[in-house]
Parts: sequence; C-alpha cells; structure tokens
Amino acid sequence: MLQQLKEQVCEANLRLLREGLVILTWGNASAASRVHDLMVIKPSGVSYHEMRPEHMVVVSLKTGEIVEGHLRPSSDTPTHLEIYRAFHSVNGIAHVHSTHATAWAQSGREIPALGTTHADHFYGAIPCTRELKTKEIQSDYEKNTGLVIIERFKKIDPLHIPAVLVAGHAPFAWGATLNDAVQNAIVLEQVARMANETLAINPKRQPLSKALLDKHFRRKHGASAYYGQKKK
Amino acid sequence: MLQQLKEQVCEANLRLLREGLVILTWGNASAASRVHDLMVIKPSGVSYHEMRPEHMVVVSLKTGEIVEGHLRPSSDTPTHLEIYRAFHSVNGIAHVHSTHATAWAQSGREIPALGTTHADHFYGAIPCTRELKTKEIQSDYEKNTGLVIIERFKKIDPLHIPAVLVAGHAPFAWGATLNDAVQNAIVLEQVARMANETLAINPKRQPLSKALLDKHFRRKHGASAYYGQKKK
Amino acid sequence: MLQQLKEQVCEANLRLLREGLVILTWGNASAASRVHDLMVIKPSGVSYHEMRPEHMVVVSLKTGEIVEGHLRPSSDTPTHLEIYRAFHSVNGIAHVHSTHATAWAQSGREIPALGTTHADHFYGAIPCTRELKTKEIQSDYEKNTGLVIIERFKKIDPLHIPAVLVAGHAPFAWGATLNDAVQNAIVLEQVARMANETLAINPKRQPLSKALLDKHFRRKHGASAYYGQKKK
Amino acid sequence: MLQQLKEQVCEANLRLLREGLVILTWGNASAASRVHDLMVIKPSGVSYHEMRPEHMVVVSLKTGEIVEGHLRPSSDTPTHLEIYRAFHSVNGIAHVHSTHATAWAQSGREIPALGTTHADHFYGAIPCTRELKTKEIQSDYEKNTGLVIIERFKKIDPLHIPAVLVAGHAPFAWGATLNDAVQNAIVLEQVARMANETLAINPKRQPLSKALLDKHFRRKHGASAYYGQKKK
Repeated sequence: MLQQLKEQVCEANLRLLREGLVILTWGNASAASRVHDLMVIKPSGVSYHEMRPEHMVVVSLKTGEIVEGHLRPSSDTPTHLEIYRAFHSVNGIAHVHSTHATAWAQSGREIPALGTTHADHFYGAIPCTRELKTKEIQSDYEKNTGLVIIERFKKIDPLHIPAVLVAGHAPFAWGATLNDAVQNAIVLEQVARMANETLAINPKRQPLSKALLDKHFRRKHGASAYYGQKKK
Repeated sequence: MLQQLKEQVCEANLRLLREGLVILTWGNASAASRVHDLMVIKPSGVSYHEMRPEHMVVVSLKTGEIVEGHLRPSSDTPTHLEIYRAFHSVNGIAHVHSTHATAWAQSGREIPALGTTHADHFYGAIPCTRELKTKEIQSDYEKNTGLVIIERFKKIDPLHIPAVLVAGHAPFAWGATLNDAVQNAIVLEQVARMANETLAINPKRQPLSKALLDKHFRRKHGASAYYGQKKK
Repeated sequence: MLQQLKEQVCEANLRLLREGLVILTWGNASAASRVHDLMVIKPSGVSYHEMRPEHMVVVSLKTGEIVEGHLRPSSDTPTHLEIYRAFHSVNGIAHVHSTHATAWAQSGREIPALGTTHADHFYGAIPCTRELKTKEIQSDYEKNTGLVIIERFKKIDPLHIPAVLVAGHAPFAWGATLNDAVQNAIVLEQVARMANETLAINPKRQPLSKALLDKHFRRKHGASAYYGQKKK
Repeated sequence: MLQQLKEQVCEANLRLLREGLVILTWGNASAASRVHDLMVIKPSGVSYHEMRPEHMVVVSLKTGEIVEGHLRPSSDTPTHLEIYRAFHSVNGIAHVHSTHATAWAQSGREIPALGTTHADHFYGAIPCTRELKTKEIQSDYEKNTGLVIIERFKKIDPLHIPAVLVAGHAPFAWGATLNDAVQNAIVLEQVARMANETLAINPKRQPLSKALLDKHFRRKHGASAYYGQKKK
C-alpha cells in the first residue's frame, strides 16, 4: 500500500543525505496520507546506502500502530505523530541534526529574522521550544517532544513558520507537502548559518522591519505571491 | 533573437550554482545588449536542473516590457533594469544570496578592504545601501531596491567597485561583461568570508593603506595594468 | 595472518580520509585481536592513495614488538598499545587531527554535552587530558600520551565516553569494535563543531540536564536501548 | 629545456587548485633548478583549466630575465626570485590566497604554535612581515615583498619555519623541494584554521611548551626523526 508515497519518503530521506543535512543514520523524513489517516516514515537506524522504498514503515496517524513494514519505525515517530495530529495543514516533516540549525537549538535561542532569505520562507523568528521537564523526558519522551512543539505554536500558523528548534536537541521542519518540508529544512540550515555570522559581524543587529518581512513572505506565499511561475 | 546571449546568461546562472553561490532556485544573472537596448534574464523560480537557454526572458531596457519568452522573468527584474539604466558601463549583473556576502548585507555593514585580494578586484570598501523606507518597500519594492543602490553609488564609479550589499537582503555584483559580473560575485564571497575571519582574529585591524589599495587595483585594472597576459 | 583484520584496518583508515577527518598522511586507526593478543595498525607516513591491507603492521599487545609487516608502524603505536592494555572492552581506536575536535584539544578544554547529538554517543563531556610534563615528553612520549589518557579515565567507563582530547594535540576515539571507533571519531568531529558554534551563539549555555543525557544515551546503548533495529 | 621541471611545476599549480587553496587564476607555484641557476614558474592570469607544462615560464635566478616561454610569468615573479636568492636551501615556493591563512595575514598577526599539528611542520609561530612602506609599494613592489620576507627571517632558518604571512596580503610557503612547498601550503591552511578556532574557544590559550614543540618537530625532521618510513 501507499507505494508511491513510500518512494517519495525514501527519496526525501536520501535527499537530506545528499544535501549534507544528515550523516550516518541520523535524521528522518515522513509524509502523511490524510485520506488514509496514515503516515509513512523512515525505519530506525538503517544505513542510507541500503535504504529502499520497501523499508519505509506505515503507521496509523490515529493509533500510532504499525500498519505495514518489517522494520521498526524511526524512534522519533511519536513526535511526527503529534505534529500531524495538531497541524492539519502539514503533510510532510523533516527532522535533521544539521550543523547550524542544531547549534541554534542547542543554544536555546530562536533564530531572529535578520534577512530577506529568512523572510522569503519564514514569517518571523524560528521559535525555540522550552526545555522538557524531567518527567516529560523520563516517560513518553518523543511524544512530549511533539507536545512542546505544539505548545510553542499556540499562536503561530505552522505554514507561516514551517520549522521549530527543540531546545538542546535539533530542528524539525515541515510543510504542506513532503517536498516543502525537505526544502524548508534546507533553507533553515542556510538561514541559521547566516544568522550566526551576521551577529558575529554586528552583535547589535536588529531583526527586519515588519514591512520588509511582510513584503518578502507575501511575495512568495498566499494570494498576492508573484515569485516563480503561475501554477498550472 | 539574441540566441548567443541567452546561452551565455543561462550558462552564467548555472555557473553560480556550480560555484556554490546559490541553492534551490535562488539567485539570478542577466546581461544587457546595449545595441538592442534589451536585457536577457533568468526566469523566476525555475529549477536550475531544468534550465535551458530558451527559458531566458528578453526584456526592454527602456520600458521593462517582456519582448520575448514564455516564462515570468526573475522577480528582481526591476532592480536589474535600474542598474543598467544608471550604470552605462555595466553589461552584466549577478545577484546571489551567497553565505558570507549575505551575512555582511544582513549585518548592515560595508566590507572594509582588509587585504590585497579585495584590492585586486574592488577599489575600496564594498558599500552597503541604506534601509528602504516602508513606503519604498510597499510599492515598487524591486525598482526601489535598484534606486537605493544607485543612490549609494553617487560618488563611486561602478566599475571601480563592482558590487553592493543591499542592507538586510544580499549582494548584487556586476561588470563590464557578464563574465566579469559572475567573477566579481565569486570574489566578493571569498573577500566577505576572509574579512569576517580577519576581524575575528584582530577586531581592531584597519583597512589597507591608500598606497597598497592603489597598487593592487591598478596592477589589474586600467592603462598601467600588468597582471595577466597582453590582450590580443 | 589476521588477513581479514588487516583489510578492515586498511579500510577504516581509508574511511577516515573519505570522511574528511584526515589529510596528507595524518591519522591512524587500529584494531585489536584479543584472542591473539595482537594489534593491527596503519604504517607510519604512507600515502593513503597507495595504502593496501598488506601494508598493515601486526604488533604484540603484550610486548609491543612487530610480529608481522615490512613497514614501520604508526609513530603513535605506543599510545594505542596503552589504551588496549588498560581498556579491555576496547577493540578499535581511531586517531585523527580533524579540524574542530583538534581545535578543542588545542584549547585545552573539554567539550561539554550541549545537545542530544552529543548525548546519543557520549555519556557526558568529552574529557581533555592534563598537559604532559617535560620529562614525559622527552622520554617515551607516545607511551606517556597513552598513560595520561588512562589517568583521565580513572573514573570513567571508556565505552560510556569513547573519546578523549589530548591537550595541545588532538583526539583519540575508540569503541568495542573498529567500526564503532571510526564512527565515534566522525560523531566527535560533528559534536565539536556544533559545540563551538553553540557557545558562539550563547556563551552562557549550560550542559544538558542529567535526565536528558540519560534518556538519549540509554536510548541507544545498553539493555534498554530502543534505537535502530533488533540485533539478530 | 627543463621539461620535467615544467611538468612538475604545472602539476603543483593544479594541485593547489584541487586542494581548494586557490580559485579563479589566483596563486602560483615555482621550482628552482640550482644547477642551471633557473626558476620555472606559472604564467600570469592563465586559467587553470587550460594550463599545460609548455605554458610554464623559465626565468634566470640571477638576472630575472625570461629565458624561455611565450607568456608573461606570474606578477609575483620578483618575490619568488628574492626568496630563492636569499634562501639557498629552498627549491620550491607556493603562494596562495587560501581562506584561513590569508585571514591571518590580513589580520597582521603571526599564527602561534597552539598544537602538535603545527609543531609537526613548523618549528614555532608562523611569522608575519611588517607592512611595506609607501615607497616600497610604489616602486618594485613585488621585489620589496620578497625583501620584507627575508628581513623577517634574519634569525630564522627557512626550513624550520617554511612559510610566512605577508601583512595585508597572503602567505608564501616553501620547502627543500617543490612537493614540500605545496604540502607546507596545505598544512599552513589547516593550522591557520584550527588556530583561529582554538582562540575562539579559549582566547587566553598559550602556545605549546618548548619541550612539546621540540618533540614534534624533531620527530619529523632532522637526524633523530622517526616518523614515516626509512628513506631508501
């Protein structure tokens, strides 16, 4: 079942490797099939060099049970499930430990919107979650990781800011499609790198004005977008 | 029309990708045909992997109208037009969001001439524009981006310093030829990277002396140049 | 003798090159055969491009004598020997001068556990040895390098923190298997890079809580591990 | 004439490109034939992609005149000549604008010996020249660049510290052979990179002790060296 989605999820995971966002067996991408109420996700700890579509694991969005697949799903599966359950507009998730975005997550600080590259893709600072409490860590850790993400997005549209930094851990990026999720993980890494360097050059630099943030985000997103070609 | 120029512009855009100055669909290069009063520019938001010369868009330098092409031109087209209209010695432009030059642009600071690598290509600091005002952002944003660049170059020969940082955005590089423009974008990125690292090592380091700046720029440019081979 | 182990050690050394952890003839990996009381190690100063399994040198763990091989073993051989003699659970060692881990070693500081990437592989800060005394440098330097490593691990299980920084020098990583040792050297480099960047963003950032450190290390190691696939 | 040396010099220049130490047409390597009192050097401003052994230029070490070759020699030729004339043990020179070593040169600071990687190849800090005076810049600039290098090495054996930073410019590396010169340029770049990062982690870190510096340099150089294989 979901053969095409398995191929897409496998390919998305391999793209994370090619783009330099993951090493070894780190990282995981998934996609939701809302019509089936299912998620397809990378197996846990399998070498990227041996990974094939048939290794992908199909999981019920409702119950979290494995519906198809011979391998264990990614250990971060409960985090993905919570995100899909809370963010109905999201259909793809990419979790990576990419160098610069992870450094920001480890620092416990949000990434301010310091340039139009950021504003083209993220409509404001990339938020950082609070630290998990000891009991949230000791029991249902991966599910609770999802819940602190959702808590942080109470007042944020997840498609306006399609990524989060989990404090002390690493980023999760997402999107309306799997392709958007992977692309947002790529852009996040570049934005994180440039933000760090910007503040090294000018530690007092303030975020973009609201006008410039609006201009760039709206140029690419929503009804008045004029970047790219007309959608067929 | 302008078949050869389309091929050159397509190839210049692809070179920006190969040189690591752009990712995804970012960046755009254009060239002017002064004799035809036309500009050839990359289409907006098209994948580099599918880009071919016939996708290039031909635009009137005078009116800004599309003269040939089935795709929308780069959303930065009005910025390119203003640069060609004001800088008559410029025949090629390359706009990129390359990591280090963009970090400087985001920081709102000019790049001081800290070494002879800089002086070989840029005859002084790489200037940074002022921030655009809210009304300049909300209406005719890309045209106004061109105008603040020109404003910044009131007292600068654009072939003496063939690049600018747009504050909060990214660099534009240019040249007497398209090849020069691309090359200047490459050098700018390297110069930006080394300037940041130089100041990390020695925060109080002052720019080069006028004598050394003169020596290196004149060694490569103008009547007394002696770098490279004699032009045939 | 030990033909298979020679092939594995040769391949491990070549992998260090491919992973960007060594340049020129730097670095060395070795593996122990506990049943034979022998160690197989890279020869000293041989080009990676010409290195073949038959160049590997077999050394007695007990006496340090060369048992087989036409070339001199790595000049760091006495350090490897001391590690194998003291850490009985260790069967592979990788020594590299990789950029970021070496910068930490040169700085004389331990790498704090600032993120879960670190905690997934190292159960606490990566320790840094004390400086060697002048007489420890002038006589039996490489053996004494091993001894200060062991001194530093008096109260640490070497499989809980499978790497060390030798102050002013570079890291040694190890593992229960040669493959683990190489993998730990790769992870160490990434962890070192992100730690430096984390502290540049937030100089006052504290290490992970004990709860989060426990959670991530135990998720991957020991009886309650649930990362990856079930071992066959 | 000197066909073999031309091939070696051409290959050395191409290796600088492959190793990432030069871009565009930057950098130049040369070799001396002491028995002929000649130097073979890269031509000025020629693309690396088109460079062939027959493009190399043969120059008299005594007079600086071109003895063979159809192209102009590197504009840095007078600097190379002064180095060969003053340092009789040097037979190869590599000049690059590699990122990290150039940042140190631009900063005007010597690179302290902060680790054994440095000490394995350089017997103390990599010195930085004084700034050239205005009249030294305006007349015979490249020759004077050579002279300030020699001035800086009055009390230093050039084979003990086979590289220099020219203040505000970039490094020159050299060696007893052309291959050593290229290798020293590679090591210098890595050492420069790690030194900068070491001081970012620990700004007060002091250079290695004399004992450790001696140990590592002597391990690889001179009569008591024991690194690598016995010379045949």
